[in-house]
Amino acid sequence: MIQVAVLGYGTVGSGVVEVIEKNKEMVNKKAGEELNVKYILDLRDFPGDPYEDKVVHDFTRILEDDEVKIVCETMGGVGAAYRFTQQALSAGKSVCTSNKELVAAHGPELLALAKANTCNYLFEASVGGGIPIIRPLNYSLTAERIEEIAGILNGTTNYILSKMEKEGADFDSVLKEAQEKGYAERNPEADVEGYDACRKIAILSSLMTGKNVDYQKIYTEGITRITAEDFSYAKAMGRSIKLLAVSREAGERTLAMVAPCMISREHPLYMVNGVFNAVFVKGNMLGDSMYYGRGAGKLPTASAVVSDVIDCARHQGKVIMCFWDEEDAPLQGIDDTESRFFFRVRKDGEEKAKELFAGAECISLPEMPEECGVVTGKIKEKDFAARYEQLGNARVGTRIRVD
Amino acid sequence: MIQVAVLGYGTVGSGVVEVIEKNKEMVNKKAGEELNVKYILDLRDFPGDPYEDKVVHDFTRILEDDEVKIVCETMGGVGAAYRFTQQALSAGKSVCTSNKELVAAHGPELLALAKANTCNYLFEASVGGGIPIIRPLNYSLTAERIEEIAGILNGTTNYILSKMEKEGADFDSVLKEAQEKGYAERNPEADVEGYDACRKIAILSSLMTGKNVDYQKIYTEGITRITAEDFSYAKAMGRSIKLLAVSREAGERTLAMVAPCMISREHPLYMVNGVFNAVFVKGNMLGDSMYYGRGAGKLPTASAVVSDVIDCARHQGKVIMCFWDEEDAPLQGIDDTESRFFFRVRKDGEEKAKELFAGAECISLPEMPEECGVVTGKIKEKDFAARYEQLGNARVGTRIRVD
Repeated sequence: MIQVAVLGYGTVGSGVVEVIEKNKEMVNKKAGEELNVKYILDLRDFPGDPYEDKVVHDFTRILEDDEVKIVCETMGGVGAAYRFTQQALSAGKSVCTSNKELVAAHGPELLALAKANTCNYLFEASVGGGIPIIRPLNYSLTAERIEEIAGILNGTTNYILSKMEKEGADFDSVLKEAQEKGYAERNPEADVEGYDACRKIAILSSLMTGKNVDYQKIYTEGITRITAEDFSYAKAMGRSIKLLAVSREAGERTLAMVAPCMISREHPLYMVNGVFNAVFVKGNMLGDSMYYGRGAGKLPTASAVVSDVIDCARHQGKVIMCFWDEEDAPLQGIDDTESRFFFRVRKDGEEKAKELFAGAECISLPEMPEECGVVTGKIKEKDFAARYEQLGNARVGTRIRVD
Repeated sequence: MIQVAVLGYGTVGSGVVEVIEKNKEMVNKKAGEELNVKYILDLRDFPGDPYEDKVVHDFTRILEDDEVKIVCETMGGVGAAYRFTQQALSAGKSVCTSNKELVAAHGPELLALAKANTCNYLFEASVGGGIPIIRPLNYSLTAERIEEIAGILNGTTNYILSKMEKEGADFDSVLKEAQEKGYAERNPEADVEGYDACRKIAILSSLMTGKNVDYQKIYTEGITRITAEDFSYAKAMGRSIKLLAVSREAGERTLAMVAPCMISREHPLYMVNGVFNAVFVKGNMLGDSMYYGRGAGKLPTASAVVSDVIDCARHQGKVIMCFWDEEDAPLQGIDDTESRFFFRVRKDGEEKAKELFAGAECISLPEMPEECGVVTGKIKEKDFAARYEQLGNARVGTRIRVD
């Protein structure tokens, strides 16, 4: 029997206990041994909970119990979670986590610590919730040089954008509704400003390059400035607007960014709606592939944590392959990145826009006779910004990248 | 250095050599050791080929060379490929294959043989070409009870159906064009009759149940009777027609079948067009997920074979987990399966159809005034067949299942 401890009895933590219990037969078969949750660490008590007798308040109980071989860190944050993870790994206990902040901030250090103590630090649940993506990148696409990863990695923003698209509604009203329904946090910043997606693409970028991609260096733009009008143009162009988290080979460097993007109907990510997430991966041999599923939620995320627990159980005393060095990956700055852009301009600025962006396409919509939409060719971000600036007051709304 | 032999220097076999060479740095890093192709077995010679000196004609050269640890079987068929695989595994050499016929026909026996000789039999490339699906099922979705797998597993039929849909063309003309372009074989039976998809869903079903699903017992229907008119109805209903290979929990039994199906725009498989393949997986915790990519082609398939080679390299002397027992999985017969059906009927049969299928919906298209389309509710296959029969000469074309 393998003893497991769960840190944090919140949504994901309680899901982990539930998955291990509900799918007991399958889980134990795959683990090769029976798994048992021995401790649940939480500051609270849970009187009446079927597992209340497993709840402890002191991490040292877990740390000092040699029977505990695997720890699930489902607390979140980079404070106590970081300390407990370091201590567990130092004691040779494997750690499985859903904590993207911690993985993005200290991934390579914790991986090295696990390796030094012949145990494992696994984080399948930290990106894409229930979508298997970390393991496919690490174990399946091993014969590939990965050229690009593009993901819809945040369910809240995808829900909001899908609803704006479907209903022609504006951002504020959809956000409010999402908050009322519990799909968005009361403080929605981490989601709508793209910070959550930024942590996740930092992790995927690091696995893609084998080096460390610092999330603080990733250009990140949220969805708060996207309007119902932008969706009208997108629709007329056969496109949708998605918050994309991208990592791409750029010569010897890597471009990583998070920003809304108008993607075409032909792109596999076009059909990813509502709370679903997906990760598009382009390999130099494989070509395009995509991994799609529920990016969040109690049971999908918990299922991913438990798949890591099973992996740890099967690899006791062995270090599972993961290439993520502490060395920083050289990143391409946003200024030198080439993109295409969509923007809106008042009719009296149309001629100037055409001058500034030679070869740009213009789209006029009958319902908005006083303006038009412009789609540029590929242009460096800094050149676009300089020319766009020159349009001054003729600009309407924001600019959006086009794939 | 790990010595590798490639059996069969055809499309996939030469792709394997190419991937190992082109992505050398990545492949060796992931394998943890340098991989070297020592032998290529083929009946032919390849004068002028950069690897001509590696070509041998006698399998015993490979079998008796103790340096060869991993064999890639990219010959196809169940004759020599079967014998060579048995011999290699018996000698403790791991075998990686793209040969779906052999895996479907003798998978559990060969897995047991590998286990007995502490080596591995891996077959990621046998289903979905370059799409990682075997490894995700075996290593990632380990905490799940999988309730359903539905796949678009054959690129040729998906290409044909996509083209029929897009161009309003009929089956014969699109098949002919596909043959001219090399997308379909001169003898297209294995593809268009669903036999290829049947082998692949047999493999996935077996991994889903952990028991053996005999491909010969899988109800299989091809796409040869699908017409341009069927696509007109599908379009009017917001649906597409895909050749689906399905495996589904049915109480204590498993339903496995291959048949064309009208799927709705909301289904993740709806957008899988052309030569792309995808596998939809429903888990009891994870909910819906999907894996999408190139289902065939030299380099994608070869990349999957090489990912298996890397896995073997990292697990020398260890048996990689795979649950596929020789015991037959109990299958649900097609007769007792419930489906919804679409069919076409002459106007003079419409009333009778409505009587026979209470609650069915009727769709009339202006361009086909002499007939209508009917969509039934869920009904047992055998009951449907009996009632449909009663429509006699009023029936037009074939019937198609509806998801």
